[in-house]
Amino acid sequence: MTENAYARSGVNVDAGDRAVELMKADVQATQGPEVLSAKKTGGFAGLYDFKYLAEGMRHPLLATSTDGVGTKVDLARRLGIFDTIGYDLVGMVVDDLTTSGIKPLFMTDYIACGHVEPERIAAIVRGVAKACAEVGCALVGGETAEHPGLLGEDEFDMAGAATGVVDAPRLLGPARVCAGDMIVGFASSGLHSNGYSLVRKIVSDQGLDWDMPLPDFIKPPAGSPFADRVGSTKANDSASGSTSATGSTSANPAASAYTLGLACLEPTRLYSRLCLDLENQGGEAAWYAGDFSEELDGNRVHAFAHVTGGGLAANLARVIPAGLHAVVDRSAWPVPALFKFLMDRGNIDQTSAEDTWNLGIGMVAIVHPDFVRVAEEAAANAGIGATVIGRVGDSAPASAEAAPETRTISGTKGVEGGTVTLRGTYRF
Amino acid sequence: MTENAYARSGVNVDAGDRAVELMKADVQATQGPEVLSAKKTGGFAGLYDFKYLAEGMRHPLLATSTDGVGTKVDLARRLGIFDTIGYDLVGMVVDDLTTSGIKPLFMTDYIACGHVEPERIAAIVRGVAKACAEVGCALVGGETAEHPGLLGEDEFDMAGAATGVVDAPRLLGPARVCAGDMIVGFASSGLHSNGYSLVRKIVSDQGLDWDMPLPDFIKPPAGSPFADRVGSTKANDSASGSTSATGSTSANPAASAYTLGLACLEPTRLYSRLCLDLENQGGEAAWYAGDFSEELDGNRVHAFAHVTGGGLAANLARVIPAGLHAVVDRSAWPVPALFKFLMDRGNIDQTSAEDTWNLGIGMVAIVHPDFVRVAEEAAANAGIGATVIGRVGDSAPASAEAAPETRTISGTKGVEGGTVTLRGTYRF
Repeated sequence: MTENAYARSGVNVDAGDRAVELMKADVQATQGPEVLSAKKTGGFAGLYDFKYLAEGMRHPLLATSTDGVGTKVDLARRLGIFDTIGYDLVGMVVDDLTTSGIKPLFMTDYIACGHVEPERIAAIVRGVAKACAEVGCALVGGETAEHPGLLGEDEFDMAGAATGVVDAPRLLGPARVCAGDMIVGFASSGLHSNGYSLVRKIVSDQGLDWDMPLPDFIKPPAGSPFADRVGSTKANDSASGSTSATGSTSANPAASAYTLGLACLEPTRLYSRLCLDLENQGGEAAWYAGDFSEELDGNRVHAFAHVTGGGLAANLARVIPAGLHAVVDRSAWPVPALFKFLMDRGNIDQTSAEDTWNLGIGMVAIVHPDFVRVAEEAAANAGIGATVIGRVGDSAPASAEAAPETRTISGTKGVEGGTVTLRGTYRF
Repeated sequence: MTENAYARSGVNVDAGDRAVELMKADVQATQGPEVLSAKKTGGFAGLYDFKYLAEGMRHPLLATSTDGVGTKVDLARRLGIFDTIGYDLVGMVVDDLTTSGIKPLFMTDYIACGHVEPERIAAIVRGVAKACAEVGCALVGGETAEHPGLLGEDEFDMAGAATGVVDAPRLLGPARVCAGDMIVGFASSGLHSNGYSLVRKIVSDQGLDWDMPLPDFIKPPAGSPFADRVGSTKANDSASGSTSATGSTSANPAASAYTLGLACLEPTRLYSRLCLDLENQGGEAAWYAGDFSEELDGNRVHAFAHVTGGGLAANLARVIPAGLHAVVDRSAWPVPALFKFLMDRGNIDQTSAEDTWNLGIGMVAIVHPDFVRVAEEAAANAGIGATVIGRVGDSAPASAEAAPETRTISGTKGVEGGTVTLRGTYRF
């Protein structure tokens, strides 16, 4: 066979095949008996046996969600760490399903790159597969596209789509939310996957270095995959002017430091298991006496909101029904130090920060007041901080207009919903 | 409210909202009563009512597929034509499902761009929505991601994922294919969405211009959206040295010419309706007396192969079972002149061309010999050329080794399947 012109044009089919070989075991580990062999279809499509999912369901609804990880891909590329960005992708895609109580079934991923480096692609997909395994979602297909000339040799982008199922009477969402509900915030693991264009702008405008060690008080979050890279003592933070003495015996202090890059690359926390477990515990108790005018059961978990682009208020507003009013107290949780560091270094005002970043709350649960303790305990058992951050009422708080820091947000992301008021002062 | 720093960093939320507004009507036109209102979930996920799809099914299987359109996005950008690339995306994603007889249910799209220009994003999504409507697939969600600094102001990439359903006894694929089956090729509308890195390399290496008028004998395919841009007479093709006289009265010949760029941007033909209609006509006739050892019915349509990356042989081999041997006669169909033009201009050898481009066959049906006429007639009724291009046998053709142009391909794309032999000479 003559040399193939297509390989020369930059699209290397062999490298693609090698990447597929490298990722095979990780991908297969996500697939149970419900996933049918590719042999049945010639591999054109991933097949999922519906009989495994509809058992016991009265009225199954399929649900789908798609997303990418924004410009966080560029940070992964710069740091040369490729096996965590897949967590971010699964978090972005699957936890949008989680908000409605939807169990993820299967997922596909798409990676575009300038050049297929098999080990790198396999590392990216390994992260997707590991996160899929954690949330019980089968990774049934994917596409790696080589775009020579359009993307740089080591540049890449990624997107994913997941499909899940929920029994209609158990669908969560704004229709369940009512006055008196409590708003429980679950801690984020860092920036998650939003606001990276702003972070990159700060780093660029202020001449910061991704490799700069962070001040001692900025520590890896619980469950950080980078924790074991970071020594027990910290290197000097010369960039901030502080010179905390270190007892490090490492010949290369920077190698054991928690750097700005690592802190910003912390993978997105996955809330799917915690939230679906809560929904399950919320049960079908008959405490609710109202008329939903829909066939909803009486679960004490009413809705979740995934805090992504637009921040806490904009995403919370999506699940507050029209006519109701959620009030969030900014002082209810400690904002992780990384956010304050970025705000200070970049001269970012509070409004921009809270409209861009999650500021420490990655997922919100709206529950019946009786259920708050269960939610907090379940989160603690999962190693995730949780606390009440607000309450749903049927009118705006009386003092809303008066307090200078109070902001009210409504009608975001194309959803005509209720209103969210942020009030009080952050605890940095 | 103070100016939002995130908008300044290049991520313009308002432009995104405006794009959503512009595309709303097109997207909603794809959605029937089976798609539930976003109000139920706060818009985090698209919901699809399973009761609309499982009716009458004995054992529903869900299927999913994801893909992009390769570097064809760059051609759309250069020509400033954004409303057809969505057809390509739907073709790439949905027609991978088609191969197994899978009916598409719903789809999501992902667009990454350097800058959200609302009209441009809306035009891209309009193309996706129109193609979705044509194949009866609901467009239930999407994501537009702005990647300032990573992609140029007018650069973009796109990907999509679709989910469909098939009743297990009706699943098509290699398990149905047997010796004696006939291979029917359906005409492509051009390059479809593969091999663009090679096309771009030819254009770049040979100093060609996307705006160059093509020779008269290269005409728009049936159904071309660009046909009405092209005058009834053609401009001179000065680049090729031919000077066919034109009677054009246009003051601007180039504006009415069929250019290289337009020919290469022709949208991917959608085969889903034709193929699913054929599968339906193939019925459950009891002609088949074999033992599938699986619960397959006796449909006379056995498999389809979507001719995408890797060309005809590599994709056909995916649906030929191990032990069987498909022989394709290259002379069975006329290769569209555009391919010969690209091969000649780029000095592309036949092997590279047939391993990269579809060379005129975009979809292949493998059917019982009794069914060939039905398939050809159905295609003709759909305005798609169709002809027998080969046959499935239980051994390699005796003359395979002798003929110098004969090539045999097996075991492609990670699927251990049968073998495909290409023999004979193309009709250019």
